[in-house]
Amino acid sequence: MNFASDNAAGVRPDILAAAAAAAGPSEAAYDADDWSTALDAVYADVFGAPCTVIAVSTGTAANALALAAMVPPYGAVACHADAHINVDEAGAPEFFTGGAKLVLCAGEAGKLTPDTVAAGTAGIRGDVHQVRLGALSLTQATEAGTVYTPGEIAALSDVARARGWRVHMDGARFANAVATLGCHPGDVTWRAGVDVLSLGAIKNGGMTAEALVVFDHDLVDDLRRRRKRAGQMPSKGRFQAAQLLAYVADGQWLVTAAAANGHARRLAAALGGRVAYPCEGNEVFARVTLAEAAALRADGFAFYDWGPPADGLVRLVAAWDTPGSHVDALAAAVAALG
Amino acid sequence: MNFASDNAAGVRPDILAAAAAAAGPSEAAYDADDWSTALDAVYADVFGAPCTVIAVSTGTAANALALAAMVPPYGAVACHADAHINVDEAGAPEFFTGGAKLVLCAGEAGKLTPDTVAAGTAGIRGDVHQVRLGALSLTQATEAGTVYTPGEIAALSDVARARGWRVHMDGARFANAVATLGCHPGDVTWRAGVDVLSLGAIKNGGMTAEALVVFDHDLVDDLRRRRKRAGQMPSKGRFQAAQLLAYVADGQWLVTAAAANGHARRLAAALGGRVAYPCEGNEVFARVTLAEAAALRADGFAFYDWGPPADGLVRLVAAWDTPGSHVDALAAAVAALG
Amino acid sequence: MNFASDNAAGVRPDILAAAAAAAGPSEAAYDADDWSTALDAVYADVFGAPCTVIAVSTGTAANALALAAMVPPYGAVACHADAHINVDEAGAPEFFTGGAKLVLCAGEAGKLTPDTVAAGTAGIRGDVHQVRLGALSLTQATEAGTVYTPGEIAALSDVARARGWRVHMDGARFANAVATLGCHPGDVTWRAGVDVLSLGAIKNGGMTAEALVVFDHDLVDDLRRRRKRAGQMPSKGRFQAAQLLAYVADGQWLVTAAAANGHARRLAAALGGRVAYPCEGNEVFARVTLAEAAALRADGFAFYDWGPPADGLVRLVAAWDTPGSHVDALAAAVAALG
Amino acid sequence: MNFASDNAAGVRPDILAAAAAAAGPSEAAYDADDWSTALDAVYADVFGAPCTVIAVSTGTAANALALAAMVPPYGAVACHADAHINVDEAGAPEFFTGGAKLVLCAGEAGKLTPDTVAAGTAGIRGDVHQVRLGALSLTQATEAGTVYTPGEIAALSDVARARGWRVHMDGARFANAVATLGCHPGDVTWRAGVDVLSLGAIKNGGMTAEALVVFDHDLVDDLRRRRKRAGQMPSKGRFQAAQLLAYVADGQWLVTAAAANGHARRLAAALGGRVAYPCEGNEVFARVTLAEAAALRADGFAFYDWGPPADGLVRLVAAWDTPGSHVDALAAAVAALG
Repeated sequence: MNFASDNAAGVRPDILAAAAAAAGPSEAAYDADDWSTALDAVYADVFGAPCTVIAVSTGTAANALALAAMVPPYGAVACHADAHINVDEAGAPEFFTGGAKLVLCAGEAGKLTPDTVAAGTAGIRGDVHQVRLGALSLTQATEAGTVYTPGEIAALSDVARARGWRVHMDGARFANAVATLGCHPGDVTWRAGVDVLSLGAIKNGGMTAEALVVFDHDLVDDLRRRRKRAGQMPSKGRFQAAQLLAYVADGQWLVTAAAANGHARRLAAALGGRVAYPCEGNEVFARVTLAEAAALRADGFAFYDWGPPADGLVRLVAAWDTPGSHVDALAAAVAALG
Repeated sequence: MNFASDNAAGVRPDILAAAAAAAGPSEAAYDADDWSTALDAVYADVFGAPCTVIAVSTGTAANALALAAMVPPYGAVACHADAHINVDEAGAPEFFTGGAKLVLCAGEAGKLTPDTVAAGTAGIRGDVHQVRLGALSLTQATEAGTVYTPGEIAALSDVARARGWRVHMDGARFANAVATLGCHPGDVTWRAGVDVLSLGAIKNGGMTAEALVVFDHDLVDDLRRRRKRAGQMPSKGRFQAAQLLAYVADGQWLVTAAAANGHARRLAAALGGRVAYPCEGNEVFARVTLAEAAALRADGFAFYDWGPPADGLVRLVAAWDTPGSHVDALAAAVAALG
Repeated sequence: MNFASDNAAGVRPDILAAAAAAAGPSEAAYDADDWSTALDAVYADVFGAPCTVIAVSTGTAANALALAAMVPPYGAVACHADAHINVDEAGAPEFFTGGAKLVLCAGEAGKLTPDTVAAGTAGIRGDVHQVRLGALSLTQATEAGTVYTPGEIAALSDVARARGWRVHMDGARFANAVATLGCHPGDVTWRAGVDVLSLGAIKNGGMTAEALVVFDHDLVDDLRRRRKRAGQMPSKGRFQAAQLLAYVADGQWLVTAAAANGHARRLAAALGGRVAYPCEGNEVFARVTLAEAAALRADGFAFYDWGPPADGLVRLVAAWDTPGSHVDALAAAVAALG
Repeated sequence: MNFASDNAAGVRPDILAAAAAAAGPSEAAYDADDWSTALDAVYADVFGAPCTVIAVSTGTAANALALAAMVPPYGAVACHADAHINVDEAGAPEFFTGGAKLVLCAGEAGKLTPDTVAAGTAGIRGDVHQVRLGALSLTQATEAGTVYTPGEIAALSDVARARGWRVHMDGARFANAVATLGCHPGDVTWRAGVDVLSLGAIKNGGMTAEALVVFDHDLVDDLRRRRKRAGQMPSKGRFQAAQLLAYVADGQWLVTAAAANGHARRLAAALGGRVAYPCEGNEVFARVTLAEAAALRADGFAFYDWGPPADGLVRLVAAWDTPGSHVDALAAAVAALG
């Protein structure tokens, strides 16, 4: 029973079918096909604003490309110290930007605040002896499974704008955040000052495509060139586009996200006081002893320690297709821990 | 009727089916799944030698990663002036290597020879004022649709070895070359001194995966790290792996390649003296006047000028699934040109 | 009266004379001149071990080159959070390495310990999803004006060796440290496990040259090529070499460093309980109120706040040629603060 | 008798004296000193236009910084195939730009023309599959010792402007060109469309400083940050600035250049029909047999073969301080060859 991650979950049948429907011969390569050319309008409709959709093969590529378009090699990006771009992307942001620096900020429960951003970047004076801050990167939902409200994002974007920075959002689990907030996708992106969204699809039922949703048109040409140069522009881009079109069709992306969120909330309820951060997406972080963790694993539940095992923090992730019976079993097991 | 490229051709049904078969939930991400872990053994069997298979999303990524593992940022790669890595990859080799240089060599019909490599690299003295040559990159089949024999590759590899270089092969149309040669895939790779092969699958019936086939084990760890850092390591790598397993199953990759080659040979026969280079793969380069080209296009045939239109060189590419009736029609049309 | 930094201090007359003596025409450029070719042997004598001396124009270049030779682009360097390479080199390490990451460690009074290095790097797991640690960078004397003992350096190097890292030392004020320790220069470099030393000369009476002193011969070729490529190899390298030869002649580098250190100790004695860190080089960090700092500045003393002014920490730097009367005056002034 | 290069020539006594005059203690580091702050006005006077002067330690650094400010990493620079940036800078342009490409153009006697630039860049289509041209780099005087007229430069700049490129001039021997042309320095720089000049001083009597003279103000902030990040911003920048101030004082830079040019013209006259390119600076390229070259060397003359020795092309370089007697001797010797 897999609660380790949603990153290997199954593929939504209609997304698979959409990809299969693109399998016939095409005369058009490199984004000139009918699927690729339809993306912008479909996503503009979803987000309620003009945007450009650039398909890529991984969230790491999406994030790193976005940051490279925002800051020069001598630039810097403010982000949470726990951000995926800092911790788990093998230096991809540094590679794609040509060596820009991540300036790490703190924040309770994975969330930056204007104050923690100010504190974290206070050491950057602005002279030529230091890197120049040029972007703020937020993660929605956060690495701690929490969710920024539209107002929180807007407040952070205001800080960024006031300092001349652009705003990037790592939305590997963006759908989960929107499903929890019940807001319009535009409310936590362009309306709140986000310039580029890395929109995750793979964890939420996708197959081989993620997307950059670009609200700042000035970045588009640069992004397209960097994408090709990064080996992220397949000739048969129709397969990525077909998946991305299907992903948001009929609002199914929010339906599956809500399902995963519901699983997580059930687990959080069962965990009670053990829950470390508010459960606002499809992840629950909980405190269990080494012995308890071992017992759960012995019962067939897979999950990660989050930090050194001795710290006793574990992460439980529900996917859109996690069987309800698995959730029932885990909820019962953790409730039984007392 | 599309003879512009094979890069948007259809997907082999069994490759699509293999991907679909991987769509259920998996507990294993990031190459730990059953498909990914099976790749090395399957390809070792195909190539007749131990190898490591690293899946990527584009040929550009495959090529650039391979070169980055072979030369330092102050290094250089000798290649044909017409090589895809030089002409059509938007500087990806320079990006991935950290700024290494391509040293361009000439060669009739797209083929390097020991003499043209020697001439093209003669200006590199070896001192610290210049970049240091560290790799030779060959394209098989070449940009001119021709094919290196095993002996030709071995002779070029000998030149490389003698100078301390590694050997890379851009095999975007490798299957077409092997199908023409009728040789064992090992004969034109590791047995002939090739260290890393960028194995194309997408043009020959694949969907979203290409492969690096690495015969030089010393490069594997570096390649794996660079791949992740380049955003080329999807969590659901099972979809790439499943396609790559299906690609070579039952020798089908050579069957489809042979089909495409056969189409091209029919076109070449019809073109007669107009053919510019020996037709040894699935591409034909032919001399037609501007008026003739216009007439063919008016008849519904799509193809590219190769170089300035006034030069009168056009490229006709057959795919594995090009309808025989389209080939018939084009063959008749070119024969009618006289 | 300048206590802001030693970085604009005067030039030792014999260093200037040595440069002037190289001003005549030479037939040899690019390190082939008599001065450049003499460097290795002279420094081998100073350090008591074979070494290669590579002249550069700034300490930033020295540090960044050294790190680039030690870690790949997907690598990482452990260093103190306050290290100059992290704080005041505008991302040069990231530029020269091709995007490697600095992993920041804590440490009282500017000094790393095996424990703080272990803690600071604990989050790096070693898998492909993260950068790979490959070097430890120490600063001697530290950013806090303190000095590592030979034993402390050896203990840190042991940690590095055990994990397969190389050891770099940023020695912008290396002479000050050696003068304080009274040890052999080899005791705090190669004998203690240091592979490459960035040897500062400019702050200690030099003019336009700093040096890399390379004890790990395996890095030399790479460093030479990276240096040229970084625009750090002047044709008239004889001027850098002449300065570097003069710098260590007759032990004068330690004489001037001791003079600066003596100035700082007098200031520290006058500051008494205000001193924040042990005064072990030519820098004193002291706690003064905003009003006191203003009063001292009104009296003509120039110095920097170290951190936000409200924190009340200031840095006083003595140079080799700081007039004794200035030191007297500042010592009297701070003593008068009570 | 050294005719190998001017790159190790002696230092003009007044430049040395100017550096020595800066040797006393300074309170101002990092371009805040009196010498550095005087540079812009002095050079504005020399060039007849507002400009920013940025001192660096080598011509390679000057060139690579200029190009990095002009083109993005996915960009390209058109230049002559023989350009120093392509042949003898170890890939520094690729390093500083983050991997941009040099697109090589032909040209008789080292000189580009609008036609050869058009031909050399004809293969760059402008789509995302290729690098994007963003700059033209000219060398004045050229690698063949020839000189562009103001009109020739303006014509090339017009080509660049029309395509949206910036214009860089590698002026390692700029003084020699101006001395030959007898024009105002502005006539072959900003008035002719040059945005940034790499102004050589070292070959023409300088010691350790070269300069970027920046006419396009939009590039200044970027250049300053890249310079620091490249380790090209010494704290004692006053020594570079003092040299650069002295370099142009009283027009002496053109006096020494004219002296070197005069030497070269005498050699060219003696060489007669052997001269390969018009002698318009301080270099002469001449055709001699292997036996003749050996004889000249046996007589004590040092010079380089230019290209493979068997090609029989040699380069003779006169410096500002080449003894007249050496010129006499070489002129006699070559005249005696018949």
